[in-house]
Amino acid sequence: MISQTTTSPGALTSDAAGLREASEGLHARYRAVRSMTRSIAAGIPAEDQMVQSCPDASPMKWHQAHTTWFFETFVLRPYLAGYRPLREEFRWLFNSYYNSLGEEAPEKHLRASLSRPSLEEVTAFRSHVDAAMENLLANSMNDEAARRVVLGLNHEQQHQELMLTDIKHAFFSNPLRPAYRAIRLTEACNVAPSEFRWHRFHEGVTEIGYQLDAANCLDFCFDNEAPRHKVYLESFGIANRAVTCREYLEFMADNAYTRPECWLSEGWETVRKQAWRAPLYWERDATDSTGWRIFTLRGWHPLSTLLDTPVCHVSFFEADAFARWRGCRLPSEAEWELAAKGSQIRGNLLESGRFQPAAAPGEGMDQLFGDCWEWTASPYTGYPGYMPLPGALGEYNGKFMSGQMILRGGSCVTPESHLRATYRNFFHPATRWQFTGIRLAA
Amino acid sequence: MISQTTTSPGALTSDAAGLREASEGLHARYRAVRSMTRSIAAGIPAEDQMVQSCPDASPMKWHQAHTTWFFETFVLRPYLAGYRPLREEFRWLFNSYYNSLGEEAPEKHLRASLSRPSLEEVTAFRSHVDAAMENLLANSMNDEAARRVVLGLNHEQQHQELMLTDIKHAFFSNPLRPAYRAIRLTEACNVAPSEFRWHRFHEGVTEIGYQLDAANCLDFCFDNEAPRHKVYLESFGIANRAVTCREYLEFMADNAYTRPECWLSEGWETVRKQAWRAPLYWERDATDSTGWRIFTLRGWHPLSTLLDTPVCHVSFFEADAFARWRGCRLPSEAEWELAAKGSQIRGNLLESGRFQPAAAPGEGMDQLFGDCWEWTASPYTGYPGYMPLPGALGEYNGKFMSGQMILRGGSCVTPESHLRATYRNFFHPATRWQFTGIRLAA
Amino acid sequence: MISQTTTSPGALTSDAAGLREASEGLHARYRAVRSMTRSIAAGIPAEDQMVQSCPDASPMKWHQAHTTWFFETFVLRPYLAGYRPLREEFRWLFNSYYNSLGEEAPEKHLRASLSRPSLEEVTAFRSHVDAAMENLLANSMNDEAARRVVLGLNHEQQHQELMLTDIKHAFFSNPLRPAYRAIRLTEACNVAPSEFRWHRFHEGVTEIGYQLDAANCLDFCFDNEAPRHKVYLESFGIANRAVTCREYLEFMADNAYTRPECWLSEGWETVRKQAWRAPLYWERDATDSTGWRIFTLRGWHPLSTLLDTPVCHVSFFEADAFARWRGCRLPSEAEWELAAKGSQIRGNLLESGRFQPAAAPGEGMDQLFGDCWEWTASPYTGYPGYMPLPGALGEYNGKFMSGQMILRGGSCVTPESHLRATYRNFFHPATRWQFTGIRLAA
Amino acid sequence: MISQTTTSPGALTSDAAGLREASEGLHARYRAVRSMTRSIAAGIPAEDQMVQSCPDASPMKWHQAHTTWFFETFVLRPYLAGYRPLREEFRWLFNSYYNSLGEEAPEKHLRASLSRPSLEEVTAFRSHVDAAMENLLANSMNDEAARRVVLGLNHEQQHQELMLTDIKHAFFSNPLRPAYRAIRLTEACNVAPSEFRWHRFHEGVTEIGYQLDAANCLDFCFDNEAPRHKVYLESFGIANRAVTCREYLEFMADNAYTRPECWLSEGWETVRKQAWRAPLYWERDATDSTGWRIFTLRGWHPLSTLLDTPVCHVSFFEADAFARWRGCRLPSEAEWELAAKGSQIRGNLLESGRFQPAAAPGEGMDQLFGDCWEWTASPYTGYPGYMPLPGALGEYNGKFMSGQMILRGGSCVTPESHLRATYRNFFHPATRWQFTGIRLAA
Repeated sequence: MISQTTTSPGALTSDAAGLREASEGLHARYRAVRSMTRSIAAGIPAEDQMVQSCPDASPMKWHQAHTTWFFETFVLRPYLAGYRPLREEFRWLFNSYYNSLGEEAPEKHLRASLSRPSLEEVTAFRSHVDAAMENLLANSMNDEAARRVVLGLNHEQQHQELMLTDIKHAFFSNPLRPAYRAIRLTEACNVAPSEFRWHRFHEGVTEIGYQLDAANCLDFCFDNEAPRHKVYLESFGIANRAVTCREYLEFMADNAYTRPECWLSEGWETVRKQAWRAPLYWERDATDSTGWRIFTLRGWHPLSTLLDTPVCHVSFFEADAFARWRGCRLPSEAEWELAAKGSQIRGNLLESGRFQPAAAPGEGMDQLFGDCWEWTASPYTGYPGYMPLPGALGEYNGKFMSGQMILRGGSCVTPESHLRATYRNFFHPATRWQFTGIRLAA
Repeated sequence: MISQTTTSPGALTSDAAGLREASEGLHARYRAVRSMTRSIAAGIPAEDQMVQSCPDASPMKWHQAHTTWFFETFVLRPYLAGYRPLREEFRWLFNSYYNSLGEEAPEKHLRASLSRPSLEEVTAFRSHVDAAMENLLANSMNDEAARRVVLGLNHEQQHQELMLTDIKHAFFSNPLRPAYRAIRLTEACNVAPSEFRWHRFHEGVTEIGYQLDAANCLDFCFDNEAPRHKVYLESFGIANRAVTCREYLEFMADNAYTRPECWLSEGWETVRKQAWRAPLYWERDATDSTGWRIFTLRGWHPLSTLLDTPVCHVSFFEADAFARWRGCRLPSEAEWELAAKGSQIRGNLLESGRFQPAAAPGEGMDQLFGDCWEWTASPYTGYPGYMPLPGALGEYNGKFMSGQMILRGGSCVTPESHLRATYRNFFHPATRWQFTGIRLAA
Repeated sequence: MISQTTTSPGALTSDAAGLREASEGLHARYRAVRSMTRSIAAGIPAEDQMVQSCPDASPMKWHQAHTTWFFETFVLRPYLAGYRPLREEFRWLFNSYYNSLGEEAPEKHLRASLSRPSLEEVTAFRSHVDAAMENLLANSMNDEAARRVVLGLNHEQQHQELMLTDIKHAFFSNPLRPAYRAIRLTEACNVAPSEFRWHRFHEGVTEIGYQLDAANCLDFCFDNEAPRHKVYLESFGIANRAVTCREYLEFMADNAYTRPECWLSEGWETVRKQAWRAPLYWERDATDSTGWRIFTLRGWHPLSTLLDTPVCHVSFFEADAFARWRGCRLPSEAEWELAAKGSQIRGNLLESGRFQPAAAPGEGMDQLFGDCWEWTASPYTGYPGYMPLPGALGEYNGKFMSGQMILRGGSCVTPESHLRATYRNFFHPATRWQFTGIRLAA
Repeated sequence: MISQTTTSPGALTSDAAGLREASEGLHARYRAVRSMTRSIAAGIPAEDQMVQSCPDASPMKWHQAHTTWFFETFVLRPYLAGYRPLREEFRWLFNSYYNSLGEEAPEKHLRASLSRPSLEEVTAFRSHVDAAMENLLANSMNDEAARRVVLGLNHEQQHQELMLTDIKHAFFSNPLRPAYRAIRLTEACNVAPSEFRWHRFHEGVTEIGYQLDAANCLDFCFDNEAPRHKVYLESFGIANRAVTCREYLEFMADNAYTRPECWLSEGWETVRKQAWRAPLYWERDATDSTGWRIFTLRGWHPLSTLLDTPVCHVSFFEADAFARWRGCRLPSEAEWELAAKGSQIRGNLLESGRFQPAAAPGEGMDQLFGDCWEWTASPYTGYPGYMPLPGALGEYNGKFMSGQMILRGGSCVTPESHLRATYRNFFHPATRWQFTGIRLAA
């Protein structure tokens, strides 16, 4: 893996050290996370921050307001005596989904119409809430408040990732195709990864899920990661790295996008309706030897310069079809978690500032964390004994347990301190605008 | 359970004895299954047999042709020397989905336009194929041919169920609301079921799935039921019977259809878009004490006369919401299978000729088979080591392993000899036109 | 024009003499019109009569019931003392649109679900109403009743045309592509029409519209044809015959279907969305020298055998684009009516039994009546002083005076006694399933 | 009519004198029109200028760029030797529809994604083109260039109106409902208009349309206003003023929005699908005596303060239904033009800076120009002998001659110098976001 902070171009200015100190105090962690959000949005004009280029995405400005709304609604209003909201309307204006709060939030597709509040007002809203939070954090806080701050920080980190995936789509949708960062990618790794290898695991009962320390209000996982529980796994093998663009090109060259037998029924229907012929962000380019170029947060790059990096922005349907075509399959989430057990949360993550998957550095178990979220074969359901959080906070995860697939591992735009081996991401199987890739199992 | 063959009104004329003899010979079983199909369609005018009243359904005439096409395409053409098809066009005309066969089948929504071939021609097609099958079955057959006959019979049994669910919807859609059978329901069971009880199971490793005897070409399960494999289950309880209309009315009376917190996000969206207020086939009726009446294959019945029968024609979203509202949950398919282990395949099935769920007869573990398919909490995926059948026959099940939920147990229109404890039915979570109900777990 | 009754294949059995006698008595006319409807439907199986293959069309069975409903609702119920309806439900079941009647008619797209009432019941309904009408017609009738009978007969004649256009579409939609009549077309006219010629008219004030004799209850026009009124026309020329398939092929060969500059904006959008490349019912056929074949009510015919017949089943958008491409335009309806003034209602009409446009016989002003309805450049609006009929009968025409274009002249499936030079037909500009063609103006 | 320039609040700063001088020189007129556009956009933040809140509308920023593109594409590139475009991409980026130009313009619904070019860049584009135009206008120009400048100025004036109608919709769509201008309306006219009176006209031949002086390159009309031609009109009466909100409330109070007999068939379908219950921009308000409030470019106003002003933002379907309900009809465009013959182009127009219809000042023939565009009963078609401009410029009007209705007179946001009595505006009959109202005829 490339050494991120020193060699990568245009790394974010957020103090990585600050994040490391997070364990020293919630206060420091609050500052670091909020600062990272500012850093991601820094220098992006207000007009760009208004764009909502597909129904899945939200404007960058909205993300900044909504994450702030979370702290105001769930922490400051109930726990900071005398707190005065900046504007009462923001209570419903920046709600995303939480039906239990009583007011109806504006419909998602209207977020692009939110020219008001202006970016300036949103920034003022952030400052207003930050000041109040400083006040709260500087003093003693009860456990429930602390738990909500931790949840709010994790929530904001999720939106940090979305800010980058959404602005990538926004810039791709703009006819002028601007870049988020001007400096182009340079590959630190010149050696093509060798053929992937299988890591083998024996059959038996294992445990997955997060064992939350209820006594420690700073211990955290999302409710859908708990409870920790036993599962029985057959013996399996899992690839040591993600599928590369080079490998995916073979699938395309074998006309897989035009052969129904490679696909799930709904996948094939999607391929036809959407006229998919390649991953999202790939575009024909006769000037490259591969015939393609790829749009990144650093602008266009010829595919030939990225052949050994993980294929990215593929849907579950494409991941599944690729695996079938290769005579393999996708791992289940339990298999993935077992394979990741004990690994450090390191990799090509947000802090690297690369914003694009990188080639696997070696021949070990690589790329588990970072680069791309990895589609699993597991539909998103509750673990045995799953209990959502009470009240509105419980609407966060359990509501969505139908029709979605689990992804594991994190991507090149996920904050490092946000991840765990037990982390469960989930999207509809046709989703492509996230940094989503493929790891094979057998 | 009511004693079906003697007391039920209008039982089908198919010889139940014939089905029992099935073990004695494939030939007899072929005749019995084909005869049951004729019996289901008997007396239904050609015009009624053309109706396709919703995208999920197909015309009754089409089902008869398609099941016949299966034998012609997969058995007679490859295995009966000198077989002459009745009409060459039927090869693609009555294909449903099998992409690998090379020709493109007519789009499903066009099945209502198939005035030609006429019902008379379809009947002639059935006779033509039956004659050739008699020829084949009377002589020795290789194992693969025999396997395909068994598969074809199971395929036809699935369509027997669909013939009844589809004609029910067709008659409901007709402004005159005709009945499939004229004789009305009479309840054999006057005793309301008592409050349901939990059957408890301990945690541990168990096995589910079907262990197919590869050496016996008459042994059968669908490919998605295999391989038999170990799973780890936490301890759980499962209800001794299905949820009744009476119990479901309480859920409705608590305004559950208007409260988002009861529902999965996609469920709530569906409720609003479809304006659901009750199960399918329920209609307001001021003349009944409950305020409702229910449309059955035997015409309208006041809900008050069916209060203790299982609630039916609910979607997964409604089953899930009901369970949540009751403070329970739906069973996983493994839990269901464990609970059904060792039970006989008996109950209110197609052969009873009731065509409508009946009240639970006692306080044991009832209604596992028959009455209603029971929604489970398990999304439909392949078992560990799942292998689809080779070629076009493999398109049957594996293709649909996304976005659907598992149902278990069979309904009042499922043929008895078609079921196994390992049987996996699956539908999209918004599906309601099937006989689908609820069993609770905890 | 070919001599229809003697040389045309498969002429309808309705007594043409009977229609001529219509002026002798309303009673005879009633019998003749009703008999023609029976003749059109004769021999068509009940299954074919249920098909509704596009939203514009209705099943043949429905047409027979709806036209009968008209007499029952507007004549028998109010004017025949002691009339007993066959079934009370038919009152709303076979209503098409008349909102004022109080009940809501079934939605149009559900007509294909009307397996009940069966064709047999519909035929019984026709007989029941015919018997009552015989009773009414045999006795004296007041003027309003007589007016409504005349309107009902004209209404039924409109549906006679629709029965044929709709069954043509139904058979075309059936994968087996059956023919309505088995006997194939033979061209009576072997001489290709010469280049068309312009008939010239001078500028000035003229009168159009029908001058209804209010004192004569048998005098008839639709309300939208009145009042007769003055219009000022610039000098103009109008072609002596309709545009032929040969001429339309030149337009296609000039790639007009791929050049936006030939089309109105909405026309171009329609061409792209519908992927139009030729008129409806044209299909590629490599075996014909033209590369095309045409589906008719008598089955497929190579285009090369129909080159000199009028192009048919084109939308207004195609007619308009063709005219622009030729450097011409379409006539206004006033121009058309002036050109048709004094012409006899003769031509290739329903009674010819050809059911397909025929080549122009000479060099005079030909094909005004019959062959194809001719798109005009006039949107459908009310004439100055237009008054709809009172009550439900007034919903017939005036309701539709937006978004539609006027067509003039009648087609090869319009009954002769139904037409007038002042007759105004109207359809949306994208409509193609009617027999619609092109006459140029300049 | 209120005296606009002195008493109206917040009048635009554009020099009205400058517009009057337009006849003195094209150069002065160019400056005045371009200055008016700047004035309309002045003070509107870049974020607001990006919003596209409905498919009909465009962002304010886009209007400024597109009108500038017109001069660059049709005037500077062909006629200014040595002209250097600011950015080559703008050639296709700001094209709206002109297919003949070769490149495909971005799809309209994507205009909201145009965060780049920024408002700043668009402003620079305007300056760049203005500088070049100054250069061109300061020197001699050939006639075709001058004609195109005049056309470009009229084009820009059309977009001035759209800038205001579109920003009104954008602000209405924003949950915070901001106002375009802060100062509220004050009624200059306290006297309610009396019952309207009919102006009567005799039947006969009259002339409508614009007689363009081909020799004078500064004479101008849109191609669809020519040629001047004769029409025959029956005698008619036309109302002396527009229908007021008070009168429209009676129509609403009579439940017209729920009675199908008041509506054209397509109108009724639209009412149901869109759930219309009142004009656009009306909202329930229990605090006003009328029960309604109205959103204006100056924010919310109680309906009770606007009762005597013309009803506005109604569709053709509503105008037509209102007229039918009143026992009247809408005028044809020829009737309107005859009634307006000889009237001065004066009224409540853009220059008044009111941005909202005002009460009729007296009892004469009022409100012909300004306040609201008036729906006519005439579909939009070409006049006899209509010839579009050659090439891409001809795509402007003729392309849209299907499915739209003519409006006459101009609105409170139309520039005075843009109008003529012969001016033909046109929109689809369901359009409501324009300032569109009703004048009755009989």
